[in-house]
Amino acid sequence: MIKLVLIRHGESTWNKENRFTGWTDVDLSEKGIAEAKQAGKILKSEGYTFDIAFTSVLKRAIKTLDLLLEEMDQLWIPVVKSWKLNERHYGALQGLNKAEMATKYGEEQVMIWRRSYDIPPPALTPDDERYPGSDPRYAALAPGDIPLFETLKDTVHRVMPYWETAITPLLKQGQKVVIAAHGNSLRALVKYLDHISDADIPGLNIPTGIPLVYELDDQLTPVKKYYLGDPEVVAQQLAAVVHQGKAK
Amino acid sequence: MIKLVLIRHGESTWNKENRFTGWTDVDLSEKGIAEAKQAGKILKSEGYTFDIAFTSVLKRAIKTLDLLLEEMDQLWIPVVKSWKLNERHYGALQGLNKAEMATKYGEEQVMIWRRSYDIPPPALTPDDERYPGSDPRYAALAPGDIPLFETLKDTVHRVMPYWETAITPLLKQGQKVVIAAHGNSLRALVKYLDHISDADIPGLNIPTGIPLVYELDDQLTPVKKYYLGDPEVVAQQLAAVVHQGKAK
Repeated sequence: MIKLVLIRHGESTWNKENRFTGWTDVDLSEKGIAEAKQAGKILKSEGYTFDIAFTSVLKRAIKTLDLLLEEMDQLWIPVVKSWKLNERHYGALQGLNKAEMATKYGEEQVMIWRRSYDIPPPALTPDDERYPGSDPRYAALAPGDIPLFETLKDTVHRVMPYWETAITPLLKQGQKVVIAAHGNSLRALVKYLDHISDADIPGLNIPTGIPLVYELDDQLTPVKKYYLGDPEVVAQQLAAVVHQGKAK
Repeated sequence: MIKLVLIRHGESTWNKENRFTGWTDVDLSEKGIAEAKQAGKILKSEGYTFDIAFTSVLKRAIKTLDLLLEEMDQLWIPVVKSWKLNERHYGALQGLNKAEMATKYGEEQVMIWRRSYDIPPPALTPDDERYPGSDPRYAALAPGDIPLFETLKDTVHRVMPYWETAITPLLKQGQKVVIAAHGNSLRALVKYLDHISDADIPGLNIPTGIPLVYELDDQLTPVKKYYLGDPEVVAQQLAAVVHQGKAK
């Protein structure tokens, strides 16, 4: 039985301020730090260990992973960072407040931007200071790979080849893998693993800072999935994600 | 001009308690955390950036690197961890107090254990709980590679092949490299870079938490070296390292 652990980063300062974040490299909030440590404590108490970890090039995911591994006394394992695991790029929505946008454009429009599979958010222009093209961490990308926006479908199309080429070979070798990533890069992966349809994907939310365990057979087909930790906390976290797009 | 930055981890809890540490995986002290952050601040203010980082599999070096990179807003760069950059293995001295040992065996003997090039410390036995053979982070090593003790010479013999195969090719490609490691793994490297003789190496000390910059030509021959930061702090840190082996 192959076990894979997914974790969405702990609360960020912009989760807290209810802003669209995307590729903006915001930090964890104090609560997010506590969530990451708690995730590490739970994994340790349940006897989990990892051989290798994957994360994005965004500090809220990297720090979540580091805090989690430190609690598990596993800081020494290899950590692979890739922009392919970044959050979905939210285009020109990045930095804007979700509740304000709901007041201005309606909750339904915000829900479409946040959760629809293939309806794009407003695009950045390359002269926008939020355009990632001048960020050294993306310097090795072909200009055509640097997004002006992404739909969840676009995110699926960059996450899944990475999953196939970088991660599944290790799982098939029996390596114990943890992936610390983002709401939408993990939704992309879960959509694939659980065969969730384009129509049903808007209903899928992933709470921050809760380890999500997949038990996979040797073809990497999911046999079982569950969150680790107190079910009440899991339910609260899920409710909090759903609530973000509401007007105040 | 190729620039290489070396940094010895910040003060650990056992540096503070004046104990022989070696491969024991002790944490940074509060002072060590502050030193690592300060090193990151200095590097940032001097305009340094890195393309890749190397460190050991010991948390005091890994955390020093992470804290330093966080201050530089460079947490996203690749980090390679290898046991080849570990501290020298101090054998059966690990855990013992340096000043107590000086009282018992004399300051001269402690100085020999700490700084001689090829006189071994007392060896561990494989049934000692300090033996690294059952630690999962060394599970991939051949049993013959797991030390019962090391002289500095032994440390040189594991650090230098790693330097040659893993690090120098990247420097020659023009990548900007930082190495966060340990007193003796860095002494091994500095001995090589500066052609320090076996007889002179006991006199070389490296302070904790101070970035040491090497400017290298394209054959990786050092042209210039200097510590970054307040020269008085550098001098104080060096004096503190020298003082550790004295009886109280």
